[in-house]
Order: sequence, then structure tokens, then C-alpha cells
Amino acid sequence: MRVAIQGERGSFSHAAATHLLPRAELVACASSREVFANTSSGRVQAAVIPIENSLAGSVAEHFDLLLSHSLHIHREFLLRIEHCLIAAPGTRTQQVRRVLSHPVALDQCRQFFRSHRGLRPEPFYDTAGSVKHLMERGLTDAAAIAGSQAAREYGARVLRKGLEDNKQNFTRFFLISRNPKIHPGANKTSIAFATKNIAGALFKALSVFALREISLSKIESRPVPGRPWEYVFYADLLCGREKRAEQALNHLAEFAEFVKVLGIYPAAASRSKKT
Amino acid sequence: MRVAIQGERGSFSHAAATHLLPRAELVACASSREVFANTSSGRVQAAVIPIENSLAGSVAEHFDLLLSHSLHIHREFLLRIEHCLIAAPGTRTQQVRRVLSHPVALDQCRQFFRSHRGLRPEPFYDTAGSVKHLMERGLTDAAAIAGSQAAREYGARVLRKGLEDNKQNFTRFFLISRNPKIHPGANKTSIAFATKNIAGALFKALSVFALREISLSKIESRPVPGRPWEYVFYADLLCGREKRAEQALNHLAEFAEFVKVLGIYPAAASRSKKT
Repeated sequence: MRVAIQGERGSFSHAAATHLLPRAELVACASSREVFANTSSGRVQAAVIPIENSLAGSVAEHFDLLLSHSLHIHREFLLRIEHCLIAAPGTRTQQVRRVLSHPVALDQCRQFFRSHRGLRPEPFYDTAGSVKHLMERGLTDAAAIAGSQAAREYGARVLRKGLEDNKQNFTRFFLISRNPKIHPGANKTSIAFATKNIAGALFKALSVFALREISLSKIESRPVPGRPWEYVFYADLLCGREKRAEQALNHLAEFAEFVKVLGIYPAAASRSKKT
Repeated sequence: MRVAIQGERGSFSHAAATHLLPRAELVACASSREVFANTSSGRVQAAVIPIENSLAGSVAEHFDLLLSHSLHIHREFLLRIEHCLIAAPGTRTQQVRRVLSHPVALDQCRQFFRSHRGLRPEPFYDTAGSVKHLMERGLTDAAAIAGSQAAREYGARVLRKGLEDNKQNFTRFFLISRNPKIHPGANKTSIAFATKNIAGALFKALSVFALREISLSKIESRPVPGRPWEYVFYADLLCGREKRAEQALNHLAEFAEFVKVLGIYPAAASRSKKT
């Protein structure tokens, strides 16, 4: 079995894929579009994609791609994001002058840089990629910030763990596949829908769930690509494959421009907020 | 008058600031937190921040910062994003081997790279910063992708315009200030609110607007930093400082955990979708 991720080996996506499919062969893709194309064509049997980070917010591109492809969410998984200071074997913390990483990761470690004035953060395009880069170039004055799995992947060393300011840093991943299978215990449903351009349309849309006592754990409006300031809504419903869910979605379809079920799957945790 | 932006001079934020406040002195800040701190302290009188891109989605960090600071949205502005191929004066397109830019910008110019196989995209942490970089290093084998204002800023040359695949590429900017002034013609209200953790709470929240025929042009749930999977809602209401708006917000405050008005301002365009 082959599973696609976007980005370099050793990334947080790689860690999530290893957790979800321990025995699968990893296919690292340069772009998210390539991940979706490979999964749609059957070149890989599944993909693992980040969909939301508890601090940085949603991965907008992945919502758009879920809408434009016929793939199904099988599982969700919450990965705790722990940033590590990583360098080539033999490099000691005292030698390090600059620290490479993705700007979002650097920004999540502000307290660390404040108490280590001698270290200069240097933006790089990718977290795991920055570890790969310093190993390939044999840099001894540089370290990288990435997950510990990046050190394992490229034979680098973890100098320090837990660099992130906020420990409540989680990323939510989806396991997606073109197979429409629904796993036992599925109790969460992700949908996309658009409403007609009239006042109160969203209120009316939410009524189909409220009237049937179905809670939402998330809602988000996303601009329609190519049609500025028109929106598609993404919602997570706290219900599985049950009669009232089917009835609510049929009710919504009566007046929505479209309704698409992105997946029905077991919820990863019980922390969902009812809204 | 001084206006803060995040990022390098010559960026799209710089272009938006020039449009909104043509005579203001620009203060380029390394981080968005610095922008908000400078505006709150009065070191600058205003800031211009991107809040949403029609293709890439919301700038999550700026929603969080609007919530945690006492600043007011004065205006919104839509900037058309046009990507240009930019190089040092004297560099000809034929000499260029690699093209530096922010990964999002590179990804928005896929068609260009498909029809120019000899050019290798190279991820860099910033669009305008990539122009600054090639000018500082005197690179002659490299070009950058950025807005034309970056070429003007650093004395570089635009080799080609309109590289972006999708011309419907707009970024929405806010002009913010600690001054609570409301401009004449204000017909749009941005708010943040949280609901209690009960089923149907969002439906109930939206009812205060639907019952008064106030349309929403956008709604978004954002995780509360440090409390994973609890959400704050951000909504744009198509109403100004009128009686029914005040009544709706008072009604919402009766049962919401909190309601915060982020600003009341004139809408930039009439393309808003009513929902």
C-alpha cells in the first residue's frame, strides 16, 4: 500500500501518515495538487493531509481540493506539534549562529529566541526541508527547527525539544482515499455546501441541523476560486450515517445550490465543541 | 502620519498602504505582532493588514490579533494581485535559470513554469524580499516573482507581467487604528463572538441577524489559541451604525459568551454575497 503526503520526508505529515498507516510506503509529493491527482488516479491508495492547526487555522487549499476531487475522508487524526532544535551530528549548541525553519514554526518559538539572543532565526520554505538542507550542505554553524522525525529521517541530532511557546499546538489530519468505505464507529460528517445569494440563507441552511438536534463542531466560509467574495461553506457535523443526518442533508439539498459529503468517519477526540 | 505593515517594503501590503494613505510614512515591521503592538502603543497612527485572499483564504493570525487588541477597522480595500517576473537591470530573460518567490506565489504561476521549462522555481520566504535578495547579492542567473511595486522599490526591472494563472486574485486589506472613528458611508460591520458549548448555539446566534433581515457576507470559525477545538466566530454583517444592528448585537450579547465589534466601515465593493 502506498500513501501520498505533500512536502519532504520527515515532515509532520510524514509523522501523521506513519501513525495512521504504519506499514504503507510513503510517496512524498511536491505539491498538494500532485497528492490529490495521485490519489484520484489510483497511483497511491491513500493520502494524509493537514486540514487545520489549532494555532494557525485551516489549510485553505486542502478544503478547495477536497471539493474539486471525488475523494473520501476515512479518518481524522490529531498530531501534537512539538518543535525541536536539530543540527548535524557533532554540532554543539554553542556553535550554532542561525536557525532555519518555516516562518510559521519560527514564529511559534519566540520565547526560545528571546532567551537565546545569539541565535538568528532564518526563514526557510519548509521545516523538514531545513533539516535536509543543513545535512546536504554539511552546515556546522546552523540548526533547524522541525519535528524529531526529521532528525531521524536525515540522520541529524535533536539538540533540544519543546521549543514551541504554546504547548496546545495540534494539527488535524485527514486520511483520504478514492474508496468510499465508511469505518465502524463513524460519528462525524464533513460537508461542503453553497447557498443561493439571498439574505438569511446560511441561517436557513443551519436550521436543517438545529431542527434535528445535530451539532456542528466547525463551520467556515471559503471564497470560490475565480469568483471573488462568493463563498462555499464547510461544516463538520457531529453525526454519522444515521436517518436524521440523511434527512437533514436531503432537506438542505432542497434549497442549497449544492451539497457534497466529503466524508463520514470516526471523530479523533471528544474535545469537539458543539455549536 | 506613520503607517505600519508586516514584511518588506515593496510588498502587496505596501501597495495597499500607498493606496489607502498616499502621504503616510511607511514603517515595515518584521512580524504582525509588532504591527499590532506599534499601532496599539501609538508609535504609528495606523496599520494596513491583509485579512483574506480570494484564492488562499483568510489570514488567520490577523483575526486572532484583531480579537486580542483594542483596535478599530476604519476601511477595507481590495487589491488585485498581479505577479511579475523581476530581475536586476541588465539581466535578460534568457539568462535566468531560477525564479525565487514565496511558495504561494510560485504555486499561483504554474502555467508560466509549464511553458518555461528552463526556469526552476525556488521557494523563498517572501515575495518582495526575493527581489531585495537578488538585488543585494547582484544575482544575474535569478529572477523573482513579486508585485511591480517591489521592482520600483529596489531598482529592479519587470521582465514580464501577469504571470498568475487565475486573474481573479484579490487580497482584502484592512486599515486599522486605535482611534474609534467611524467613516461616513459605513455600511459593513465586522464582529467576533463565542457561543456557549451547546447544540444549536450558532443557529441561535445567526437568528438575531436573520430575524432583523441583516445579511452576512462572511462567517468563519477560528480555534481559540491555547484551547484546541474551541472556536470563536468572525462574521461580516452588511449593515452600518443603525438601530437594528445595535438591537441585533444586544440580542446576541444576551446569550453569547462575548461579542466584540472589530469595526464599522464603508464596504470596498458591491460584490459581497448575502448569506
